[in-house]
Amino acid sequence: MRISPLIDRLIDSLQAQPGVGPKTATRTALHLLQYNRAGALALATALTDAAQQVQHCRLCRTLTESELCAICANPKRDAGALCIVESPSDIVAIEQAGGFGGRYYVLHGRLSPIDGVGPEELGLNALAEHVRASGAKEVILATNPTVEGEATAHYVKESLHESGTSVTRIAHGVPLGGELEYIDGGTIAHALQGRRRID
Amino acid sequence: MRISPLIDRLIDSLQAQPGVGPKTATRTALHLLQYNRAGALALATALTDAAQQVQHCRLCRTLTESELCAICANPKRDAGALCIVESPSDIVAIEQAGGFGGRYYVLHGRLSPIDGVGPEELGLNALAEHVRASGAKEVILATNPTVEGEATAHYVKESLHESGTSVTRIAHGVPLGGELEYIDGGTIAHALQGRRRID
Repeated sequence: MRISPLIDRLIDSLQAQPGVGPKTATRTALHLLQYNRAGALALATALTDAAQQVQHCRLCRTLTESELCAICANPKRDAGALCIVESPSDIVAIEQAGGFGGRYYVLHGRLSPIDGVGPEELGLNALAEHVRASGAKEVILATNPTVEGEATAHYVKESLHESGTSVTRIAHGVPLGGELEYIDGGTIAHALQGRRRID
Repeated sequence: MRISPLIDRLIDSLQAQPGVGPKTATRTALHLLQYNRAGALALATALTDAAQQVQHCRLCRTLTESELCAICANPKRDAGALCIVESPSDIVAIEQAGGFGGRYYVLHGRLSPIDGVGPEELGLNALAEHVRASGAKEVILATNPTVEGEATAHYVKESLHESGTSVTRIAHGVPLGGELEYIDGGTIAHALQGRRRID
């Protein structure tokens, strides 16, 4: 239903958010206009500031408005371990899990020749130099276990072959709390292949 | 996890939207910054424009940036039937259901003495005059079937007593597709009480 030009435009614009369709957008627009105009204006300012000022960290390429992100600027983070991820949200997921004290490198995508995404777009040409300069002893490949993610991991491994750096891949297998009978065959095959001796 | 001051502020501001918590807000912020900055800036403009310019329709009090909303300005809408609702989103719901060709009056709330919401805040003092001026033959009470909604409906009915206008209440009962065994007792009691002879 069309309400008024400005409200309709707000409803359309709200759908730029992932997972927000016409119904949620309508509810959100009316809620903000009825009860929280200050919040709507604060959100508008935050969107403008972030969209105009957020860029990529000079070292790890994650999103930040500073030259260096908080992790790269933190001297306590271990420069010896470099974790390669596809996107900034992967960093959020790994940081929230805790337990990793190293640094990151964000590809902003994965190799996908069909979409015109090659090594250049992912910053892979600069990666070997970055690894050398950072003094990383171990490069951990945390790209997603999809066809493109695996191809990307393979490419990175090959491109670091000459550097002599140790390259590892995160484990893929049965997730915690997962029950074997509900897990797909590919995951089970990975879990069997990646089995380890228990001492 | 704190990412950077501007991104953190965006994540906080996104949570002004109903149903959006930290996890959805983080995903939304990173998605907009990675893939859709133009959409983020368009959303910022739409939010600012709407929050600054949207007011209440002079006649029915719904949200619009014009003096009159699209329904009040539409001469084809039947001035003989006036439907009283709690909020603009109720108008959206009724319009989407179709079948009602009359006009509306928005209370922007319901009587709730505890929260300091009295007849003045709901525009109920102006309602009798509005009904007289609009020439409505029937006033349909479509407030929600809650304690406050029922109290509000009762108040409106009383306040229109002298006007001689016919006052009706929308039916409450078993929803279409609802199965009796899963429906609460209050609804079934209403459905029995509101039973009608079939001819």
